Amino acid sequence: MAGTRLKDVAERAGGVSIKTVSNVVRGNVRVAEPTRRRVLDAIDELDYRPNASARHLRTGRSGVIALAVPELVAPYFAELATAVIEAAREHDVSVLIEDTGGDPAAELRVACGLSDPLIDGVLLSPIRLDQATLAHRERRVPLVLLGERDFEVPADHVLIDNVLAAEEATAHLLASGRRRVAAIGFQSDPLFTTSHQRARGYLRALEAAGLPHVPELTPLVPAFTRTHGMHAMRELLALPEPPDAVFCFSDLLASGAVRGVYDAGRTVPGDVAVIGFDDIEDTRFAVPSLSTIAPDKRQLAKLAVDSLLTRIAGDPEAPHTTLYAPYRLVARESTARDAGNRTGGT
Amino acid sequence: MAGTRLKDVAERAGGVSIKTVSNVVRGNVRVAEPTRRRVLDAIDELDYRPNASARHLRTGRSGVIALAVPELVAPYFAELATAVIEAAREHDVSVLIEDTGGDPAAELRVACGLSDPLIDGVLLSPIRLDQATLAHRERRVPLVLLGERDFEVPADHVLIDNVLAAEEATAHLLASGRRRVAAIGFQSDPLFTTSHQRARGYLRALEAAGLPHVPELTPLVPAFTRTHGMHAMRELLALPEPPDAVFCFSDLLASGAVRGVYDAGRTVPGDVAVIGFDDIEDTRFAVPSLSTIAPDKRQLAKLAVDSLLTRIAGDPEAPHTTLYAPYRLVARESTARDAGNRTGGT
Repeated sequence: MAGTRLKDVAERAGGVSIKTVSNVVRGNVRVAEPTRRRVLDAIDELDYRPNASARHLRTGRSGVIALAVPELVAPYFAELATAVIEAAREHDVSVLIEDTGGDPAAELRVACGLSDPLIDGVLLSPIRLDQATLAHRERRVPLVLLGERDFEVPADHVLIDNVLAAEEATAHLLASGRRRVAAIGFQSDPLFTTSHQRARGYLRALEAAGLPHVPELTPLVPAFTRTHGMHAMRELLALPEPPDAVFCFSDLLASGAVRGVYDAGRTVPGDVAVIGFDDIEDTRFAVPSLSTIAPDKRQLAKLAVDSLLTRIAGDPEAPHTTLYAPYRLVARESTARDAGNRTGGT
Repeated sequence: MAGTRLKDVAERAGGVSIKTVSNVVRGNVRVAEPTRRRVLDAIDELDYRPNASARHLRTGRSGVIALAVPELVAPYFAELATAVIEAAREHDVSVLIEDTGGDPAAELRVACGLSDPLIDGVLLSPIRLDQATLAHRERRVPLVLLGERDFEVPADHVLIDNVLAAEEATAHLLASGRRRVAAIGFQSDPLFTTSHQRARGYLRALEAAGLPHVPELTPLVPAFTRTHGMHAMRELLALPEPPDAVFCFSDLLASGAVRGVYDAGRTVPGDVAVIGFDDIEDTRFAVPSLSTIAPDKRQLAKLAVDSLLTRIAGDPEAPHTTLYAPYRLVARESTARDAGNRTGGT
């Protein structure tokens, strides 16, 4: 039936509230099953179809935001996406997820709001989008960046202090008596801000401990994957003086690095202590469990969603804000001081 | 400029093809950088904004499909989503991803195409959507189900043979001489088709080997998570006669189960052989690496996308098809016959 509205459905369903109909349409779980059935039947009978375009025209908003991440297949981003969906649900807002593949053109397209004309705003975790490109582009929808940037970007911005977190991770290894501390995650491309910030923290910790930067202990990696972590660790173990500890710039790198240690017939932390970054789920269950920097993903997501909704509801010209979410260092088996760990081969 | 079209942008950009402009707008990586810049400048100058609604009105299609999965945070679904994005890109189709949380109401909403009026069709990995509900609902857009269903569903359907795969996994443990083979993944809810099919395969393999079903070796789990895998393994190891092998119905369960074995001071595969299901990335790098059933996710994604696009382009009343994708058993360290593995504590 053309022109059917929530109100008609609510009446047909026996006089439930419009809010209840809205909850059912959105798949909200808090609706009691008999009520849900009545509303669904009413929707069927009236052939009601929620019209996002109509809602958009009426309110100027669709109630949908986009989240663009470089790769969903990286558990950190899947966990972050889940946290964003939960934070948005608190505001009755839906999230459409896009996977940019870390491609700058795709990131730019998303940042400019070109990808879907119905979205109210965009949360973007950029990998290689550069300042010049972003500053130069006109944006059609509010944008909040989620993740570290080295440069000033004309957008709201939610992140953790990566330099400080990396410094703490490295200091944790040094505090356990390790002296030849490598880092896996250095990258040469100047656009890879994440790598540069974590490298800076690593170097600061070395300096504070009076240790020099030994370039052979900081191999370059093309990406933060398990495979590259494994290969980098193999290189490090082949050195005349291999490291006794490694700070990996992501848990995926760390997971590959641990595998590389075992493939060489050595153990973690007996021969090499390993700490990662991200606190993804699988490293908590790994053998040995992985020490890591745990960004507060729920808080990151909440700050990002709140910032975006504020920007959508408010002044598009208001000054841009940068918000920091907390993180903590989680010490687990992979950096235990007692080298006689149960996963050791001896 | 109102009424600006791809053609205008193509001309302004110095006479590139319309296809090239389309590629740039969609973030396609195959466009050379100088060309991409020219097109972006032309888009800026003309203030061109692709209008999905207009495209939709003109062609009847938006070039966007939705993929709904129960939880992106489960690596299997993140990997499947990535494969679907890649398969869709081959057809110049974009994918919007929705996380249903495994909630039947959300699954139903997606299946009926209520979630976004602009999408051309829906790929749905349902967890608990039941036949009665789905059959009864009128659907607004073509739907393809991705994943196992026990019952006849009025929709196209892409899956692997779960019963056979589970039987092979169990037979693999039996072939290595194990005789007290447990299973972690049994569920009581009749809607959890995945669990029931894998349970059936497990029981078939036991029967073929002349072994009885020992109920205490098949504890119920509420969900396929690492935590539940770990707890189930602890229960099994506390039995007077603990198992010497376990078939886990997912790699997440298996990952938790392996952790449970080490927490009890025992080793994999020395004391307990473990095989999983899904072939997610982290279990390939785990110590010990995990044997598993590897569904061909690329093929699953390709079959699903092709089926959906055929249904979108063709006859909505054509008979529904069921397509099977291949899988293979991958034997790794966690089921090695040589119990003197390097991760063992002895």
